[in-house]
Amino acid sequence: MDNKPIILVGNDDGIEARGLKSLIEFLAPMGELYVAAPATHQSAKSSSLTMDTPLRVDRLDDYMGARMFRINGTPVDCTKMALNRLLPRRPDLIVAGINHGANSGSNVIYSGTMGVVFEGCLAGIPSIGFSLLDYRPDADFSACRPIVEQITADVLANGLPTDVCLNVNIPAGTDIKGIKVCRAAHGTWTEEFEQRTDPFGRNYYWITGSYSNTEPDSIDTDLYYLEHGFASVVPCRPDQTALDAIALLASRL
Amino acid sequence: MDNKPIILVGNDDGIEARGLKSLIEFLAPMGELYVAAPATHQSAKSSSLTMDTPLRVDRLDDYMGARMFRINGTPVDCTKMALNRLLPRRPDLIVAGINHGANSGSNVIYSGTMGVVFEGCLAGIPSIGFSLLDYRPDADFSACRPIVEQITADVLANGLPTDVCLNVNIPAGTDIKGIKVCRAAHGTWTEEFEQRTDPFGRNYYWITGSYSNTEPDSIDTDLYYLEHGFASVVPCRPDQTALDAIALLASRL
Repeated sequence: MDNKPIILVGNDDGIEARGLKSLIEFLAPMGELYVAAPATHQSAKSSSLTMDTPLRVDRLDDYMGARMFRINGTPVDCTKMALNRLLPRRPDLIVAGINHGANSGSNVIYSGTMGVVFEGCLAGIPSIGFSLLDYRPDADFSACRPIVEQITADVLANGLPTDVCLNVNIPAGTDIKGIKVCRAAHGTWTEEFEQRTDPFGRNYYWITGSYSNTEPDSIDTDLYYLEHGFASVVPCRPDQTALDAIALLASRL
Repeated sequence: MDNKPIILVGNDDGIEARGLKSLIEFLAPMGELYVAAPATHQSAKSSSLTMDTPLRVDRLDDYMGARMFRINGTPVDCTKMALNRLLPRRPDLIVAGINHGANSGSNVIYSGTMGVVFEGCLAGIPSIGFSLLDYRPDADFSACRPIVEQITADVLANGLPTDVCLNVNIPAGTDIKGIKVCRAAHGTWTEEFEQRTDPFGRNYYWITGSYSNTEPDSIDTDLYYLEHGFASVVPCRPDQTALDAIALLASRL
């Protein structure tokens, strides 16, 4: 029992999210779980931190043996708080999710789920994010179980390369064809800001839009494999330096 | 006059920030400026988006000829709103800053300033972020002028490599030794959460901490050059895929 790995679990959909509960159920047999999750929905919070308001921590009832901490902050606030204040020691693994909806292509940059994962990676802890391509509140997470188990067990046993973390996306439905390790597709949002008028005659805007793969003919990307029924695993680095551009720019500046 | 480039300017310190005003002053002779900036301080907002509240746009008085738009959102909300609703056409350049404080080392991931820059880069527009290593409200931005001018002029004339944007940090003081194109240092935050008790007896926490360079002996990093009096230019990519880790992980999963 004392030798069980400590796994820190987080998410961005909030501590009440069904995807988080499913993740806890899948991981409970694999380690001693600590959950640090936002009090409210925190989608598209990226790696943002709360600087202007103080944070509060509430211990909730355990769930499936997991110690549950609710924090009124962003996903990354929760991770930092857990690492610094809540855990008995440095965790062996950080897992975020299961996100209600895709974090594929270039959307990683907006993702609060991946914010947690990059935070773990920056702290030198093996970290994995899981997302299901199903936004519905009643999404069925059960088919994610073997994917979550296989990848988590592999990372607990073998670790990850230095400064590398994993972004896993899982197609909706039960007919998952397998796992493909690949790169993130390049894509773009076509945004629309829907304009409305409030009861006082002032305009306001809601962001809407659609995401499209700008390299639909590439057969080595996460979007390609997800469209073809596979779970995608994209190894990621927090460091965004474009090493191959240094020499050219140095010759100009 | 009609041939002047259109430059979109943003920041994360808010539309009233002195660093933004200085940037507008430096760029005004170089193009037709549109400013889309947050109504309030938005430090450490990373690439986060506002999903739960509607956005409002207020046109303020022009400043140095620049059209000023104040938006009640995050830095990236402002950029998206400008690209989709406020500009007469696609801009030739996006510039963010001048940030009050460093965005060096691994702190790029938390930066709202660099959120704007990555957003521009994802849209295929040459984008540059400028930060001054001086957090003080009365920081002197005047010494940044030749750096901003040189780099902006170069990018307007020559563009940037595909999917690459620039993160520029400038040391405080007037004795800037030159410009170095380099990689981001790896570093780590030692966080402390300062615990206090409110008048009602409940605990709350403020995040504090200190950042340290975990590779102080490396002489090719932004933190090294900044410590030695140079402005640092780190070429960055929004895509965080660790291409070199794909083969190894594919052999395991």
